[in-house]
Amino acid sequence: MQLGFVTGAVWATRKMPQLVGLIFLLVEPENGGDPFVAVDSVGAGPGDRVLVTRGSGAKGTENLPIDARVVGIVDMIERRESHVSE
Amino acid sequence: MQLGFVTGAVWATRKMPQLVGLIFLLVEPENGGDPFVAVDSVGAGPGDRVLVTRGSGAKGTENLPIDARVVGIVDMIERRESHVSE
Amino acid sequence: MQLGFVTGAVWATRKMPQLVGLIFLLVEPENGGDPFVAVDSVGAGPGDRVLVTRGSGAKGTENLPIDARVVGIVDMIERRESHVSE
Amino acid sequence: MQLGFVTGAVWATRKMPQLVGLIFLLVEPENGGDPFVAVDSVGAGPGDRVLVTRGSGAKGTENLPIDARVVGIVDMIERRESHVSE
Amino acid sequence: MQLGFVTGAVWATRKMPQLVGLIFLLVEPENGGDPFVAVDSVGAGPGDRVLVTRGSGAKGTENLPIDARVVGIVDMIERRESHVSE
Repeated sequence: MQLGFVTGAVWATRKMPQLVGLIFLLVEPENGGDPFVAVDSVGAGPGDRVLVTRGSGAKGTENLPIDARVVGIVDMIERRESHVSE
Repeated sequence: MQLGFVTGAVWATRKMPQLVGLIFLLVEPENGGDPFVAVDSVGAGPGDRVLVTRGSGAKGTENLPIDARVVGIVDMIERRESHVSE
Repeated sequence: MQLGFVTGAVWATRKMPQLVGLIFLLVEPENGGDPFVAVDSVGAGPGDRVLVTRGSGAKGTENLPIDARVVGIVDMIERRESHVSE
Repeated sequence: MQLGFVTGAVWATRKMPQLVGLIFLLVEPENGGDPFVAVDSVGAGPGDRVLVTRGSGAKGTENLPIDARVVGIVDMIERRESHVSE
Repeated sequence: MQLGFVTGAVWATRKMPQLVGLIFLLVEPENGGDPFVAVDSVGAGPGDRVLVTRGSGAKGTENLPIDARVVGIVDMIERRESHVSE
C-alpha cells in the first residue's frame, strides 16, 4: 500500500452507475509519484494522512470499476532500522 | 483513478470479437505519463476532462480484454489542504 | 491500452503447457517505455501498429499465464483537442 | 517479487474492517523505488530482508483490500551468471 | 511479458505455506528496470534468457501469492521491422 495525503475531492455527475454515491478523494503520494484519485472507505478528509490500496485490491467484494481505495487513516509511523535479537 | 483529457479516438477494424462496438478514446494524463487508450463508458468526447480506471478494475462484469476505462466525466476538482476541526 | 508497433517475434520451445501454440510478438511502445512481448489474438505481423492490453485483462477467458495481448490492429488515430458544443 | 528491508511499521486505528488485526510493515525496496507498506504474513520485523509480492497476488484467498504482502524472509541470495553444462 | 536473464536464486526458509517447494529465481530484465524475483515453471537456470509474466497472470490456477513467473526459455528472437504485402 502507499502512504499519501488527501488534498481534495473530485466531482463527476456523469459516471458509471456502480460509482454513484462514492466519494472520490484526490491523494498526493507521500514519496513522490503523481497525484491520483481514490475512493474513500474510511471517512477520510482533506489533510488526512492515509493508507491507499491500488490496483486489483481496490475493487472490493462489490467488484467496483475502480483502481485505488483509501483503506485506512494513519495514526503513526514507527521507524526502526534493526531489532534487538530475541 | 487517474485524471486526463480526451484528445482523440482510435479505430481498429480488426480486433478481438469482445471489443466490437466499443469506443476507444485517446487519453492524455493530466499529471504526466504517456498518452494511452481507454474504452468509453460514459459518452465522453474530445476535450472532456475524465476520470479513468486502469488495470483490473477496467475489465468490468463482462471481463473484457481491456486495461483502461473512462468511468466518469469530471465536473469539478476541489482542492483543500487541511480541514476545519469538527 | 497502449499503442505500439510489432517489431518481431519470440520463440520458446520450452514453455508452460498452456502457452503451446501461441504467437509471441515483440512490441515497441509508441510513446516511450521498454519493448515487451505480447501474445497475438488478431493475426498481427511485423510493421503493424497495434492496440495492446496489459496486465490482468490480457489473461482472457482461458486465464492464460500471460500479461500482454495484442487485441487490435490500428486503422486510424483521430486527434481532436476540443469538440463543438452540442 | 521484490526484495526489500523492513524499516518500520504503520499504525491505523480507523481502517476497513477486513484489515483489523493485520500488521502493516514499512518496506524499503532493495533496488530503488519508493518505500511502501506491506501486510506481514511471516512474522517479519525491522531489519529483516524480505520477499514481497505486490498487486493482485497479495490479496490472498481472503481477497483482502491490500496490494503488497511480505511472503518470505530471505536467508540467502545466490548469484551465478552462467551455469555448467549438464 | 518481459525478457530477462536468470542471474541467481533466492532462498527463504520462512515463507507462506503455499510457497513451499517453489524455486525463486533472480531475474535481470533485458531492457532496463530493476532486477526482481520470479517463480520458475520451466526448469530455467542461471544464464538462461527467459520470458517472464508479471502481475496477475503469474498466480496460475493455484492462485499463488506471487507476482512474477518464468513461463518460457527463449530460443530465438526474430526482429523484422516491416513485412512483405500478402
